[in-house]
Amino acid sequence: MTTTTSVMRSEIAEQPDALRRTLDALLPQSAEIAALAQQTRQVLFIARGSSDNAAVYGGYLLQAHAGRLATLASPSIATTYGAKVDLSGVLAVAISQSGRTEEIVDTMTWAADCGARTVGITNGAGSPIAETADVALVTRAGDELAVPATKTYTTQLAALAVLALGLGAELGADELNRVPDAIEETLAEPGEQLDEIVERLVGVHGAVVSGRGMAFSTALEAALKLKEACYLHAMGLSYADLLHGPIAVVDAETPAILVAAGSGPTLQGTVALAERVVANGAPAYGIGGGSALAGACDLCLPAPDLPEWLAPISLIVPAQLITERLARRLGYDPDAPRGLGKVTQTS
Amino acid sequence: MTTTTSVMRSEIAEQPDALRRTLDALLPQSAEIAALAQQTRQVLFIARGSSDNAAVYGGYLLQAHAGRLATLASPSIATTYGAKVDLSGVLAVAISQSGRTEEIVDTMTWAADCGARTVGITNGAGSPIAETADVALVTRAGDELAVPATKTYTTQLAALAVLALGLGAELGADELNRVPDAIEETLAEPGEQLDEIVERLVGVHGAVVSGRGMAFSTALEAALKLKEACYLHAMGLSYADLLHGPIAVVDAETPAILVAAGSGPTLQGTVALAERVVANGAPAYGIGGGSALAGACDLCLPAPDLPEWLAPISLIVPAQLITERLARRLGYDPDAPRGLGKVTQTS
Repeated sequence: MTTTTSVMRSEIAEQPDALRRTLDALLPQSAEIAALAQQTRQVLFIARGSSDNAAVYGGYLLQAHAGRLATLASPSIATTYGAKVDLSGVLAVAISQSGRTEEIVDTMTWAADCGARTVGITNGAGSPIAETADVALVTRAGDELAVPATKTYTTQLAALAVLALGLGAELGADELNRVPDAIEETLAEPGEQLDEIVERLVGVHGAVVSGRGMAFSTALEAALKLKEACYLHAMGLSYADLLHGPIAVVDAETPAILVAAGSGPTLQGTVALAERVVANGAPAYGIGGGSALAGACDLCLPAPDLPEWLAPISLIVPAQLITERLARRLGYDPDAPRGLGKVTQTS
Repeated sequence: MTTTTSVMRSEIAEQPDALRRTLDALLPQSAEIAALAQQTRQVLFIARGSSDNAAVYGGYLLQAHAGRLATLASPSIATTYGAKVDLSGVLAVAISQSGRTEEIVDTMTWAADCGARTVGITNGAGSPIAETADVALVTRAGDELAVPATKTYTTQLAALAVLALGLGAELGADELNRVPDAIEETLAEPGEQLDEIVERLVGVHGAVVSGRGMAFSTALEAALKLKEACYLHAMGLSYADLLHGPIAVVDAETPAILVAAGSGPTLQGTVALAERVVANGAPAYGIGGGSALAGACDLCLPAPDLPEWLAPISLIVPAQLITERLARRLGYDPDAPRGLGKVTQTS
């Protein structure tokens, strides 16, 4: 049964307001973050699922623009192995939509026990993550009811941008404030080729979703959306990882979805990848990347003209729209994928 | 055309000898490693492709058993963004089969410029990685001609085990020396159900490959092998990540391949996952995990009785055998997958 709309679609549309509320609330916290910056040397992200994809964005942002090593933790070191690791000088940043996923709460507590200072990024005001972290960055997405995260994901990215500013990234808060309007434009005009891309993805068994640098996070998150709501075998890979083996899977039945900001150092490589995919006889669908990527792909959806460091907040929106439409087109309920609940508990 | 054997199959069989040579060469270097240990606090791996999967093993090993934070670098921070990051106190460990992949060489050089000490793990004696690193751990796999890495991968894992011992992990070198014989046993008796698993994977479009903790590396590497040699949409995921969304893709046509050591803290969770997959109506095929995993899966291949920290060196072998046979069964040449060369250059 194909329904005509979904809660997920409404929540996608709420993102401009959710981002405005979040930025208004979090930008004033930059002094608090700056204080933590002086006590720490590097960042360690603690996250799973969509929040882990947000952490990938945070990692590139902090390393490329704030001069700090920023990498991802393996929560099972804490929860399964119960190992002690020296985390003095580390700023552990836990990201969790609900703020209640036990594995993330436990790993953040473990990090503090190992000597780390902590930041919690969560949409759950009053949750254990918000209450326990040294500094809590509470996003203002409002309640999210559809299982696939949309507005909680983009507001996490906004919180990470605020974190980067607080940790000394020389980037403009004024540019960050442009993002909600930019996404509003994308929602108003998502691109003429949206329906055509959705139609071509019907019946496809697998897809490769790829992006580089900052946009790698978008590729991972787009692949996760397509896996969880459309049951598509979508593999999110960085450009470089794709060339180390998995490029072999791309063929006429396995399209590549390629994501890039409209400018910046990763655009050229993404365009070259699109050309290689097409030369291999596989379809290439673009998101963002300006006229260069559109010219190299079979079909392409535009993204707003934002600087590369902010582009991931808007680049995921066309992928959310593709996912929501494709799920309904396939007769699935995007709000409640099989086998998934809203707060994922892993131990 | 189905050929009866391949170079890949010969190289799989060479692993016990390759491991013996490698351990003989590297175990005496532990004093050199211990000297680096005193000058550094944590480890940052620099790798791509199969070497990146080896790095995942190294990360769990060092964090669970040597008390050191050990995470993965994003090479494009160096090569694409040209960013300066404070890496004082960091031991950067570059892993590259050839030792010549420009991206890895450049990122290791960048790490040294940022203040890191360096270790190079490579099969390329005389390569830039071997010549430039503060300490080179040169594996003795011999020439590897098939494109999918097998003996260069398992010898990388052995080098990482040696690194862990040198960095103070309280584990036994005598146990490490048991690995080559254990793999020899697996090769002699790979399990009665090998052909049946291969047969059931024919015609499958996608598969989820999952493992936890140390065995997560095996899941990633098995998925990469299946992608590059069999063009299967194989998604390598940790147990926890699988439950955060992608569990939705597992169904009657999308089996799960589950990997675990025969003992240790991740076995129970992997068995529970197998039960959940089967309850969802999807096939579950096990590798290792003793009788507990075999009992929960439809079909299972045994792995030698090695302690959990060493199990990944042997657990990949059944997956290599599945990959090589499935590729030939599907009429592909496992030695030369489409679109891939032996030394991957990415920039």
